Amino acid sequence: MISFTNDYSECAHPLILKNLAEHCYEQNEGYSEDRHCKNASDLIRSYLGNIDVEIHFLNGGTQANLTILSAMLRPFDAVIGTERAHINTHETGAIEGCGHKVLAMPGEDGKLTPEDIEEAVAQNTTVHMVHPAAVYISDTTEIGSVYTKAELTRIREVCNEHGLLLFLDGARLGSALTSAANDLTLRDLAWLTDVFTIGGTKNGALAGEAVVISNSLLQRDFRYYMKHKGAMNAKGFVLGMQFETLFRDRLYFQLAEHANQMAELIKDACVAAGFPFLTRPVSNQIFPVVDNDTIARLQKDFTFEIWEPADDSHQIIRFVTSWATREEQVQELVKAIRKK
Amino acid sequence: MISFTNDYSECAHPLILKNLAEHCYEQNEGYSEDRHCKNASDLIRSYLGNIDVEIHFLNGGTQANLTILSAMLRPFDAVIGTERAHINTHETGAIEGCGHKVLAMPGEDGKLTPEDIEEAVAQNTTVHMVHPAAVYISDTTEIGSVYTKAELTRIREVCNEHGLLLFLDGARLGSALTSAANDLTLRDLAWLTDVFTIGGTKNGALAGEAVVISNSLLQRDFRYYMKHKGAMNAKGFVLGMQFETLFRDRLYFQLAEHANQMAELIKDACVAAGFPFLTRPVSNQIFPVVDNDTIARLQKDFTFEIWEPADDSHQIIRFVTSWATREEQVQELVKAIRKK
Amino acid sequence: MISFTNDYSECAHPLILKNLAEHCYEQNEGYSEDRHCKNASDLIRSYLGNIDVEIHFLNGGTQANLTILSAMLRPFDAVIGTERAHINTHETGAIEGCGHKVLAMPGEDGKLTPEDIEEAVAQNTTVHMVHPAAVYISDTTEIGSVYTKAELTRIREVCNEHGLLLFLDGARLGSALTSAANDLTLRDLAWLTDVFTIGGTKNGALAGEAVVISNSLLQRDFRYYMKHKGAMNAKGFVLGMQFETLFRDRLYFQLAEHANQMAELIKDACVAAGFPFLTRPVSNQIFPVVDNDTIARLQKDFTFEIWEPADDSHQIIRFVTSWATREEQVQELVKAIRKK
Amino acid sequence: MISFTNDYSECAHPLILKNLAEHCYEQNEGYSEDRHCKNASDLIRSYLGNIDVEIHFLNGGTQANLTILSAMLRPFDAVIGTERAHINTHETGAIEGCGHKVLAMPGEDGKLTPEDIEEAVAQNTTVHMVHPAAVYISDTTEIGSVYTKAELTRIREVCNEHGLLLFLDGARLGSALTSAANDLTLRDLAWLTDVFTIGGTKNGALAGEAVVISNSLLQRDFRYYMKHKGAMNAKGFVLGMQFETLFRDRLYFQLAEHANQMAELIKDACVAAGFPFLTRPVSNQIFPVVDNDTIARLQKDFTFEIWEPADDSHQIIRFVTSWATREEQVQELVKAIRKK
Repeated sequence: MISFTNDYSECAHPLILKNLAEHCYEQNEGYSEDRHCKNASDLIRSYLGNIDVEIHFLNGGTQANLTILSAMLRPFDAVIGTERAHINTHETGAIEGCGHKVLAMPGEDGKLTPEDIEEAVAQNTTVHMVHPAAVYISDTTEIGSVYTKAELTRIREVCNEHGLLLFLDGARLGSALTSAANDLTLRDLAWLTDVFTIGGTKNGALAGEAVVISNSLLQRDFRYYMKHKGAMNAKGFVLGMQFETLFRDRLYFQLAEHANQMAELIKDACVAAGFPFLTRPVSNQIFPVVDNDTIARLQKDFTFEIWEPADDSHQIIRFVTSWATREEQVQELVKAIRKK
Repeated sequence: MISFTNDYSECAHPLILKNLAEHCYEQNEGYSEDRHCKNASDLIRSYLGNIDVEIHFLNGGTQANLTILSAMLRPFDAVIGTERAHINTHETGAIEGCGHKVLAMPGEDGKLTPEDIEEAVAQNTTVHMVHPAAVYISDTTEIGSVYTKAELTRIREVCNEHGLLLFLDGARLGSALTSAANDLTLRDLAWLTDVFTIGGTKNGALAGEAVVISNSLLQRDFRYYMKHKGAMNAKGFVLGMQFETLFRDRLYFQLAEHANQMAELIKDACVAAGFPFLTRPVSNQIFPVVDNDTIARLQKDFTFEIWEPADDSHQIIRFVTSWATREEQVQELVKAIRKK
Repeated sequence: MISFTNDYSECAHPLILKNLAEHCYEQNEGYSEDRHCKNASDLIRSYLGNIDVEIHFLNGGTQANLTILSAMLRPFDAVIGTERAHINTHETGAIEGCGHKVLAMPGEDGKLTPEDIEEAVAQNTTVHMVHPAAVYISDTTEIGSVYTKAELTRIREVCNEHGLLLFLDGARLGSALTSAANDLTLRDLAWLTDVFTIGGTKNGALAGEAVVISNSLLQRDFRYYMKHKGAMNAKGFVLGMQFETLFRDRLYFQLAEHANQMAELIKDACVAAGFPFLTRPVSNQIFPVVDNDTIARLQKDFTFEIWEPADDSHQIIRFVTSWATREEQVQELVKAIRKK
Repeated sequence: MISFTNDYSECAHPLILKNLAEHCYEQNEGYSEDRHCKNASDLIRSYLGNIDVEIHFLNGGTQANLTILSAMLRPFDAVIGTERAHINTHETGAIEGCGHKVLAMPGEDGKLTPEDIEEAVAQNTTVHMVHPAAVYISDTTEIGSVYTKAELTRIREVCNEHGLLLFLDGARLGSALTSAANDLTLRDLAWLTDVFTIGGTKNGALAGEAVVISNSLLQRDFRYYMKHKGAMNAKGFVLGMQFETLFRDRLYFQLAEHANQMAELIKDACVAAGFPFLTRPVSNQIFPVVDNDTIARLQKDFTFEIWEPADDSHQIIRFVTSWATREEQVQELVKAIRKK
């Protein structure tokens, strides 16, 4: 059985484990005040030009999202996202658990539009309604699409017009930045957002999300928010060592690129088989619409997610590739798809 | 510079890293539904006789504490602990952040007494006060003391009399269970508490606390609490693999025993130097009372925590040893202490 | 200027103020443990047959809603309501502020349907999503429609099938129960819901909502939830005296009936003027669709709410009548509408 | 049976009920945007010189406290108060329910001292501890003592030194300001605190606390906090009308003065009877230390609170007088005390 279910099935890239093993007995400062976290931050900063950021390393996506939004929002403030937004659908109410409403807007192709933001603001204008104060977007999105620089710039402008903070969830940022459809850089993200994350969990790390904060007001006291939410690790250096490895010699981008290439091979097979897609496949998640018979056949040798029904005889399914996906695994799948 | 500042300075025991490396590319189920978590749970269960527990693996102590107490308490419920309790002093209000008051009682020798519990209950009896609903203790305690079976049994009885849940924070449980002063077993803990944790972070793991739940009402839906608090890892198996290693061949106990032995060497040197102690030194944390001159001298070559002032010319300091402390490091310290 | 903006513009019915004045210097127990609260509860109970309820008196609607839902929901539990639900739109995130997601479903004619509930449950089935645990409905609804006994019974059945608690917000319950479209009684509500409220603020009281709890698990400790949320009044008897007056000699129903009759006169005039309605007008809130010119003309002498745009030249407006609306005020409005 | 149990036993001063009755059918704006709230605010402002304040009217003390502190504190911020502070002991964890720790300090004579504040700040200095951000004091205190201008000024200075906000809970402010021991004015309070409250519930109102905000950052968006916490009344004018009455012709001060005078008569009798006091009796709450026999005898005709045990044969009891206490009631008690 080969899994294309997600990109967090495999442990971690060997170079990461090697870095950990090499410093096995090294004594480090606790709580991320060590040289590895500093080094990892500096390596990430080297991509950001002269933008003054604070960088923190957290354990996972939901933890990062709830900590960041807690720091962004006052009790009655709300965050705007799409209906598919991870914080709206797949975090077991973690954001509401911190006291905040998620204003879910339709979005388009998985992406939040400037019009969505305008509408959410226009709908919530009095003291009897929540106060929209932040915008949440993901890149890649929950359905694998990516934002262009023009799109992100326009969102930033709308945020500025309405006094909204902008948070980009980069749980799959590697795949986004190495997508053929992408024209954004890390520096653009630091410039255009108030906070963005660089996901490690889904791109070769044991676990870990780097939180990059360019808004100086959010930089202040962010560590208090982390500790208060249980998001500060005694052995912060374990995350630091991993991001050190990922951003030394561009490993982070190489791993993501590999995942995207593997997905493209699957995409090509799907196109050849005549499968339509939920959305244009440009990243390491692709969503072909497949007939039930083929699905049943594929499920004998492969695992993947049934995303949502398309019609009576078809379903949208999700194939995900990762840094660890081997080409021979993909070829098996491609072969199976071709049999159709 | 040799650090005796804490037991989370070093990365992880080589066997743990080896286990991770060996399964580097293995595809696992996400969210702790994998075979390693199952295996780790079964290994821990093998110490518990026929007590039916649920076991979950979380990232760190504050995260475990806030998730467990969230599951134990209704909004107006409070938890009883000592004034020194970690949840009362060193978690940045994480428990209050989940809505709950910590009722801080004096304690004795760092340990909560049955009388403390009785008094907290007696002081909070009407609807205008918080409702005491749970008891929090740590073993070893925040000052390195350990509970005896008689003490824990008496606390359980008082809990039963007042309808209180009992939670034992085992961030340093390895050191407690291998202390010469200990007569408790893991099975006793499962029997006498509703929930206890087995700390990995401070005993050789990269990170991780095993949460062992014997109260069946708390078992139900605990994973919802985890996810809601950002405490569920996509790659849960990374924690599973670590506890698998720790509880295979009793590594967990060996590592803790080593730390305790190292501490005992330091203790002996302190005794020989005539230093009194904040509390009887029985675990991997010891708290000698040392004159300022000696402290200044030791600080040239060693790092350790200044715990609290004793008098004008003395301070209580803390030495902590770990699974990674090498005997030659200890001998250096012992030598320096002897110079006094 | 005559206001048809809402039903909370006028102070309180004279009989209520008389009851307060008559007991001006009477010494009462604090925190609702007085004879007036008891008497008010008994008067309400006399409508409920042999159903064993607990009754509490709170200050207002949002306060009642957030206190009740706090008592119903665990941290990761969510409440299902319509998109128009007051808790979803007009409470400044008070429910999220208590940590809970509101699952907003489309509804039909302002009412939640069994299908809405089924769908919300079907959409949230794993530990990664919130756990639907309660259903919130309002009677009259936010657009003045009312539930029939058959509808409420069917909702109860669906709740039972899925283990959901049912809460009916009766901020305008008087108007609902005296509507020509209604076939429910207070006894039906106590039987079919777990909790319902009887709104006083919008039906003649200075302030106050009676919370009627028939689910015995929710009865337990409800006063703790009240105090914890700042919803317990030192002078609870002030609310008790008001509900005592309202439920002695059926005043509550008479006041609501009067409001409904006043609304019906306006409705008749709207029908005669050819105005369509957002929904069938059956209570003290009616929502005619009116052309902009007429609206502008009416605004010279009357205040009312512009609800939402209908088309380029028409808007949906809201007229609300109350226990205090005098027939001559209505006749003025009717005359103005006829001028069309 | 005559009650000296508290100052919230009686409904409301007749002039307040008269004002409500006179405007029984008057149509007012909702949500405190009416002329009575404006008028009441202006009347209070007339005592404050040129200090620019915002004034809001809330229902009760716990509600006011939790709403104000929510506005003052970020998630990890804590409030400093005395161990006896109402927020620490008698609000069922409402402040923790909003996520914040109460740092309880010993205090002196019921009052928080500058040293208490310094110590709380000194004890909480790292990111692993809560961040002290506000100070809570009550005037009169929970044991009836009052702050002097010199004391409050010194507290303000310490707050300024440490960047702390200062909140004075005036649930019994009338009694404080008319105490013989007082030298503070409303203007002093507006000048020296960031927020203070003027308690109506315990001084003649049906319910209500005026929240006076002089810190401009806290003024902004306070109504959002109110609504979010269920603390905004549809009929805000009911509170406005009451404070309008209380601050027209100095009624508020007259009522409090009366309560204090009644307490003084009881105090004189206690002194004559040789009862010592928990603290110097200067307000409408006095705490004599009384032998058990006398207590038993008094309990036949009077109700009052047993505050706490003094020794084996004596208890500290609490007598409270109010705006409604009649001199003949006091004479009965005085007579009974004299019998000793």
